[in-house]
Amino acid sequence: MRAYNFSAGPAILPEEVLKEAQAEMLDYQGTGMSIMEMSHRGPEYSAIHAETIANIKELLNIPEGYSVLFMTGGASSQFALIPMNLLGEGQTADYTNSGAWAAKAIKEAKALGNVHIAADCGKEIPTRVPSIDELDLTNDAAYLHITTNETISGAQWKVFPEHQTLIADMSSDILSRPLDVSKFGMIYAGAQKNLGPAGITLVIIKDELAQRCPASVPTIMRYSTFIDNNSLFNTIPTYPVYILCLVTRWLKAQGGLEGMQQKNEEKAGTLYSAIDASDFYKGTAVKEFRSTMNVTFRLPTEELEATFVAEAAKENLKGLKGHRSVGGIRASIYNAMPASGVDALVAFMKEFEAKHA
Amino acid sequence: MRAYNFSAGPAILPEEVLKEAQAEMLDYQGTGMSIMEMSHRGPEYSAIHAETIANIKELLNIPEGYSVLFMTGGASSQFALIPMNLLGEGQTADYTNSGAWAAKAIKEAKALGNVHIAADCGKEIPTRVPSIDELDLTNDAAYLHITTNETISGAQWKVFPEHQTLIADMSSDILSRPLDVSKFGMIYAGAQKNLGPAGITLVIIKDELAQRCPASVPTIMRYSTFIDNNSLFNTIPTYPVYILCLVTRWLKAQGGLEGMQQKNEEKAGTLYSAIDASDFYKGTAVKEFRSTMNVTFRLPTEELEATFVAEAAKENLKGLKGHRSVGGIRASIYNAMPASGVDALVAFMKEFEAKHA
Repeated sequence: MRAYNFSAGPAILPEEVLKEAQAEMLDYQGTGMSIMEMSHRGPEYSAIHAETIANIKELLNIPEGYSVLFMTGGASSQFALIPMNLLGEGQTADYTNSGAWAAKAIKEAKALGNVHIAADCGKEIPTRVPSIDELDLTNDAAYLHITTNETISGAQWKVFPEHQTLIADMSSDILSRPLDVSKFGMIYAGAQKNLGPAGITLVIIKDELAQRCPASVPTIMRYSTFIDNNSLFNTIPTYPVYILCLVTRWLKAQGGLEGMQQKNEEKAGTLYSAIDASDFYKGTAVKEFRSTMNVTFRLPTEELEATFVAEAAKENLKGLKGHRSVGGIRASIYNAMPASGVDALVAFMKEFEAKHA
Repeated sequence: MRAYNFSAGPAILPEEVLKEAQAEMLDYQGTGMSIMEMSHRGPEYSAIHAETIANIKELLNIPEGYSVLFMTGGASSQFALIPMNLLGEGQTADYTNSGAWAAKAIKEAKALGNVHIAADCGKEIPTRVPSIDELDLTNDAAYLHITTNETISGAQWKVFPEHQTLIADMSSDILSRPLDVSKFGMIYAGAQKNLGPAGITLVIIKDELAQRCPASVPTIMRYSTFIDNNSLFNTIPTYPVYILCLVTRWLKAQGGLEGMQQKNEEKAGTLYSAIDASDFYKGTAVKEFRSTMNVTFRLPTEELEATFVAEAAKENLKGLKGHRSVGGIRASIYNAMPASGVDALVAFMKEFEAKHA
């Protein structure tokens, strides 16, 4: 029996996707080979590569002048690559601190160049992201960096700031809602939450930005290398891209990002309503910034939280423990979490409250 | 029907491994989740991670003082990371040029520091790697870099040079033969030939070497970060490690690296004997350096080579086309290629020669 998997990432994948991958594991479309065993320059993988890029361009309605890249090393690598490529000597980059993930991006950038903190919501247990009207921006900053969704606090940017070069870490909410890509200089996302398995990093970048890179940056660390070679400068992690391809097909079948957004808002609405209707459960994030992806809440005591996580797991509701740095409960309800999973969680919460309140 | 897949990489995987991965795709050991969907810090993946490292240490008999790391970005990333971490300012690194892959390592290192070419076998169509007695070494070089097997030419180092800090790109022959790891400062290998699917890079490094890294190198680009965090500083590509785990179990069942070496030498011997017994086929690599992993040969004309590749594919012998830079035929016979695949290829070669000679 499949579990309802509320893990923050690596995270749940659509069951249809896993079933197709399973069926094709030893013999991809009559070739007698797994896609895992095939050349990244052969016709089968090339078709998958091209389709995945085309599907992402279609889903996000990406305008001309942007490239869709597949890189490796996750968001943590981007934290270094962004200043290496895009923060010129003597320039300043503006960063917003919205919590743990933004703080990591800031730490790496500070080691590589001048960083100005345009807003700071970081604290031991963060509860929100900055609002646009509190941003203190540098004139002529090389870029403004935001983290659109913080998985640990469960807080999310709902409206994005305007900036000539806005860069966004969307690791935990990419493809969960429609987006005006033309407002961004660059968007990046580790795959392991809303896209596919760990091992591939999606980068959407305005081509002209990549020209900023100083000559001292190694070939494999330049965005221009990935643009010029269609992400095939070296061997790409083909299997994670294949799974991502299946996920993008699944997203299109869900009504694209409009359809996905509606489903995500319904799921999150169901769960937040259950929290708000109870005095037993308390939501962690400030209401106006509540994430549709990671729903965080507390119970009256840490002991009850531990019991909650353990009893839920017995009911096949898994991965509900909050991040070790903040405690509490976290239900990650990414695109692939079906509404039935949220309904099952809400039913369990009511039973648990009746028994323990 | 499964094909005999002679691709140079991504490459054939053991059928047993793919079958196990297929069986566990939707439900790993009764958890109701794919290993792909699980936290990289959870108990299931943690057990796989630990077992994979333990199996590699056992297979290669790795001494104390070395770490086994899982990184990303393939050998191409290591080409930059090695000089960034290990080539101090004012120091010189010695590199041997054995062909296309070594040349790429050299190009990146030259952009980052002082490089001395200790031996040069590079040419348009390379046919061998350097021999030890022709090495022209720098006194006190930061390290000596070799590429133990060149997939394009089909040439392989059979004996390794002695050096206080020997670094080897073993992407295409790692785990194909026993090795005295204590003779090396560092060994690295992209996974997609002998280890598993593309997406993970195995690094075996003497811990004390990692201390050389200058403070200016970003966190995610230091070997010490991976050593200190057991390769779990950030989200690791869990699925490629899982497949690698299954491959290491399979290797142990084959009699470890002694067993594997014997099988590999038998397979290569069968194929080279067939080439040498014929005037129609001509081996490309100089005999004493012939690779046990990539067997390269020519036919009398390029037209016949194209026909050979096409007719072989019809007989389920796939991926035999030589690298686009050199042409000819290349049969990659990594660990996972069964002897029956080589026998089928030799039988086909005899038929083809009888028809076309």
